[in-house]
Amino acid sequence: MTLAVPSFDDICDAAARIAPYAHVTPVMLHFKCENLQRGGAFKFRGACNAVWSLDDEQAKRGVVTHSSGNHGNALALAAATRGITAHVIVPEGAVRAKLEAIERAGAVLHRCAATQAAREAKAAEVQQATGAELVHPYTDPRVMAGQGSLVRELLNQSGGLDALITPVGGGGLASGCAIAAHAWLPQLALYAAEPEGADDAARSLAQGARVGSFVPDTVCDGLRTLLGEPNFEVLRAHRVEVITVSDAQTIAAMKLLWRELKQVIEVSSATVLAAVLQRPQLFAGKRVGLVLSGGNVDLDALPW
Amino acid sequence: MTLAVPSFDDICDAAARIAPYAHVTPVMLHFKCENLQRGGAFKFRGACNAVWSLDDEQAKRGVVTHSSGNHGNALALAAATRGITAHVIVPEGAVRAKLEAIERAGAVLHRCAATQAAREAKAAEVQQATGAELVHPYTDPRVMAGQGSLVRELLNQSGGLDALITPVGGGGLASGCAIAAHAWLPQLALYAAEPEGADDAARSLAQGARVGSFVPDTVCDGLRTLLGEPNFEVLRAHRVEVITVSDAQTIAAMKLLWRELKQVIEVSSATVLAAVLQRPQLFAGKRVGLVLSGGNVDLDALPW
Repeated sequence: MTLAVPSFDDICDAAARIAPYAHVTPVMLHFKCENLQRGGAFKFRGACNAVWSLDDEQAKRGVVTHSSGNHGNALALAAATRGITAHVIVPEGAVRAKLEAIERAGAVLHRCAATQAAREAKAAEVQQATGAELVHPYTDPRVMAGQGSLVRELLNQSGGLDALITPVGGGGLASGCAIAAHAWLPQLALYAAEPEGADDAARSLAQGARVGSFVPDTVCDGLRTLLGEPNFEVLRAHRVEVITVSDAQTIAAMKLLWRELKQVIEVSSATVLAAVLQRPQLFAGKRVGLVLSGGNVDLDALPW
Repeated sequence: MTLAVPSFDDICDAAARIAPYAHVTPVMLHFKCENLQRGGAFKFRGACNAVWSLDDEQAKRGVVTHSSGNHGNALALAAATRGITAHVIVPEGAVRAKLEAIERAGAVLHRCAATQAAREAKAAEVQQATGAELVHPYTDPRVMAGQGSLVRELLNQSGGLDALITPVGGGGLASGCAIAAHAWLPQLALYAAEPEGADDAARSLAQGARVGSFVPDTVCDGLRTLLGEPNFEVLRAHRVEVITVSDAQTIAAMKLLWRELKQVIEVSSATVLAAVLQRPQLFAGKRVGLVLSGGNVDLDALPW
């Protein structure tokens, strides 16, 4: 006997027939792979927006920042796209591999002592000497706007979301995404994932006032920064809920992402999956966007 | 004054004007990311082809193999796509994570001692008891054919190649790709990258006769296998040139791929980039396809 099997037309008919009764089932987790962004992190978006927001006169005098991490590298790359000079202030003890990357991107390095005050003084000095425009890594509105540009891409790529999670450190990414997300989808639930050992954003939002200083203790090197003042205001206004995760949870999530997605992501990026795994009831049945913020890892110092 | 800038039409005109004189410059290195294949390795192609090549009667009796690595997992996944049973022979001392993956894929595990003879005896026993079809990891023509299926994709995706490099262990991938590549492009230069400490393919082709036994000593766990007999014949017929690389070169290439492509690839996969870096004069100006064979890495035992 011939076995009865449906034709393609039968399947199309079935789809129409069950549509009033059956759910359109969601794809649940959408990972936005900013580890594959230029420079290996979302930071290029903000730096690039800042560089191309300058008028020609200002652009000629270049840009300056005092981040030796992903933002410094991103600003160097962004400046190169416009053929202008980027000055990057580098504290003593910065990771050699990061400095080499910044130099390869064509930036001018300036050394200073490893304190916040020394960095800011040196940046002011370079500004005075060159007229370069300061591009702060997360409080600059042009930077926040640039970081927020990933939201529209993610909404298009995912076909819609119920919730969005970003990591939070200084808050440039979290605040830019909050503004963009609520402009497109006012009902979108917004979350920020933060290491327990650097939970100033969680504490700031809980007490309704920004924590002014803290000593970070977390393996997430990209998230040891104090939440910026404008960033705090945006997260509060948009009712972003912070989920704090332990370093152990984050490292386990990082390994899971490496093993299953085969993507090299940095430890800070794994906080977003750690948050989902910690609060499954919160995300059950939801279409969740997770921003994998970067992939710049010191392969000789993995956190496990 | 208004600066003179070209319009888009000007650029299209320029392209036509210079076309007779200027070179169409190539994209040089095309990495075929089989780490993102189902099961995290190219092995799924061959296993899947074998499973779907069976007639219904044979399929009902299932399939069996004696590989506890990527092929065992691939055969388990492939069998699941047809709803049939996969028997996987597992030697003592096999990596627990790999066994768990094979079990998750739905295969039946059979234990045996850690010798080649014990594996083959156990596979024969399972065959006898169940009637399952043996799917050898690299000498099976159906497996070679499946592995070769990536070549057409790569030619389409790259827009053309001058050379192709695969890793070589048992030779299922290298031989399948050689047959496919020369069918499409008879002039394509074919290379196989092999660890110095498991260079039986290089020695076999140099002496014109297959090396019958060797003791591998390489960090490339996926390439410790002796080149198969039919695989040897194919590599010889297609004049595949073997490039041997040291483990140190391979590990350096692996880190480079992780850092720059942000892709988790296993150490065996990095041999292909190590080969290019070792012989730059051979590949200068060529469009080179490099098969990144898999991404199943023990994150707790990285080779550096």
